[in-house]
Amino acid sequence: MTVKERHSPLLTYLEKRQRLINRALERALPKAGVYPGVIHEAMRYAALGEGKRIRPILTLAACEAAGGAMEDALPAGCAVELIHAYSLVHDDLPAMDDDDLRRGRKSCHKAYGESIGVLAGDALLTLSFQILARQKRHAARWMRISEELSRAAGTFGMIGGQVVDTHANFDRRKETVQTYILSHKTGALIAAAVRMGGLAAGASRQKLARLSRYGESVGLVFQLVDDLLDNDGVAKLWGKTQTKKRAQKLTHQAKEAVAPLGKRAKPLIEIADLLLSRET
Amino acid sequence: MTVKERHSPLLTYLEKRQRLINRALERALPKAGVYPGVIHEAMRYAALGEGKRIRPILTLAACEAAGGAMEDALPAGCAVELIHAYSLVHDDLPAMDDDDLRRGRKSCHKAYGESIGVLAGDALLTLSFQILARQKRHAARWMRISEELSRAAGTFGMIGGQVVDTHANFDRRKETVQTYILSHKTGALIAAAVRMGGLAAGASRQKLARLSRYGESVGLVFQLVDDLLDNDGVAKLWGKTQTKKRAQKLTHQAKEAVAPLGKRAKPLIEIADLLLSRET
Repeated sequence: MTVKERHSPLLTYLEKRQRLINRALERALPKAGVYPGVIHEAMRYAALGEGKRIRPILTLAACEAAGGAMEDALPAGCAVELIHAYSLVHDDLPAMDDDDLRRGRKSCHKAYGESIGVLAGDALLTLSFQILARQKRHAARWMRISEELSRAAGTFGMIGGQVVDTHANFDRRKETVQTYILSHKTGALIAAAVRMGGLAAGASRQKLARLSRYGESVGLVFQLVDDLLDNDGVAKLWGKTQTKKRAQKLTHQAKEAVAPLGKRAKPLIEIADLLLSRET
Repeated sequence: MTVKERHSPLLTYLEKRQRLINRALERALPKAGVYPGVIHEAMRYAALGEGKRIRPILTLAACEAAGGAMEDALPAGCAVELIHAYSLVHDDLPAMDDDDLRRGRKSCHKAYGESIGVLAGDALLTLSFQILARQKRHAARWMRISEELSRAAGTFGMIGGQVVDTHANFDRRKETVQTYILSHKTGALIAAAVRMGGLAAGASRQKLARLSRYGESVGLVFQLVDDLLDNDGVAKLWGKTQTKKRAQKLTHQAKEAVAPLGKRAKPLIEIADLLLSRET
């Protein structure tokens, strides 16, 4: 997170949740010494490294905004973070983006070999759904959370965005292609992270609709800011000024959507501003 | 399936269930024309081709043996078959076994490119859990099914077996390594397929224990016969005669485990014999 000085109470809020999520991920992932060790080492390497934990923080914050306790949403937060982690591992593979580095160190397949790269991604994806399936209370609620996550992670969400962004069948100079990528590649999972938090709190349909609007908007903002920082995607198509305006308007809409939830929604509102102003 | 002549009523039984499963898979997979088409085409290519559907047939047969209707277990059968399909797609990747052919035609990544190979596998895995999460009735039951599948597909099941079978850290000449592969690489998913059928029927703990014993035994037999046909794995370590004896003994144990379920378990018993005598 940037701008430490300006966001000090928010920073404390975020760091507390980061620690909680990191501890939960630490517990959810098999220990490195458990047979067959190499795959568990690789999973931990990919999931427990640096990382802002934006998605699970949104899950926890949405749960709290809907009146739940943040602990209620921890399994959902872990699940969404593991999906994010698996997607990075597979994106870095030679067959995909072929990245040797990730967050300043070797990418997973560079550290453990390419076959473990494939399998560690598969294993993180599998573990994500296992964490949700393990929940013994509120089965119907966790089924909906699992459905939400699978939809957002699949071909009508993140994988779809990835396909359109990378496959030669799709002309990235086209506006329709870029707006599809905009809402699917990262936006779908972020929107799901927020809704999953609401579902974990057992939120009413009305509260869930507010959280959905918030999540969809900040999901788009996330990708818009990515595009602005990389001078790519819609930023290249629309220009920086228009893209920035769009991101500002969406942030405003996100904040308006959850404002009626009262002071419990204050962190979501501050996170929306933070996501708009982030510089990395 | 082999030995058409000897197993004619069984063959009718199997073909009926194959058709039912193929229709259910056909419905569960997004149509090839749905945007972004290439990934849905690749998923259908990988999941709807030839294939004996042994795992989902076991799921349906176990459900019926426990007193359920075969339709009750169809989502579980589809889910387990999609896990099997994804595992083949990723196993064939250049980073893994590097196979250009699968069931007499191009492997998925050869037909659609390597990046789609990675993503189609991911998407089949994701869809598998989505199918389970979508079930609206008996939420707790479907949660257990999802937990069962994720455990069998993960690093304590199929992925673990794959790691030990392929990674240089593990000495495949060692008996402990070979027996681990034996029970994990294909056995875990086959055992889960059977248990998932029992769970879908809402089987009692006692019936489920019988189905578990059956599933674990036929899962081992499946891998033993694979090893015999390939003259690899434990067959190379133990010799053909001893391996065959072991497979026969396990088949006997499998049949004994479900015999008390009465005539509803007859197909499971016949399938156990068929899996022992298969020649491909």
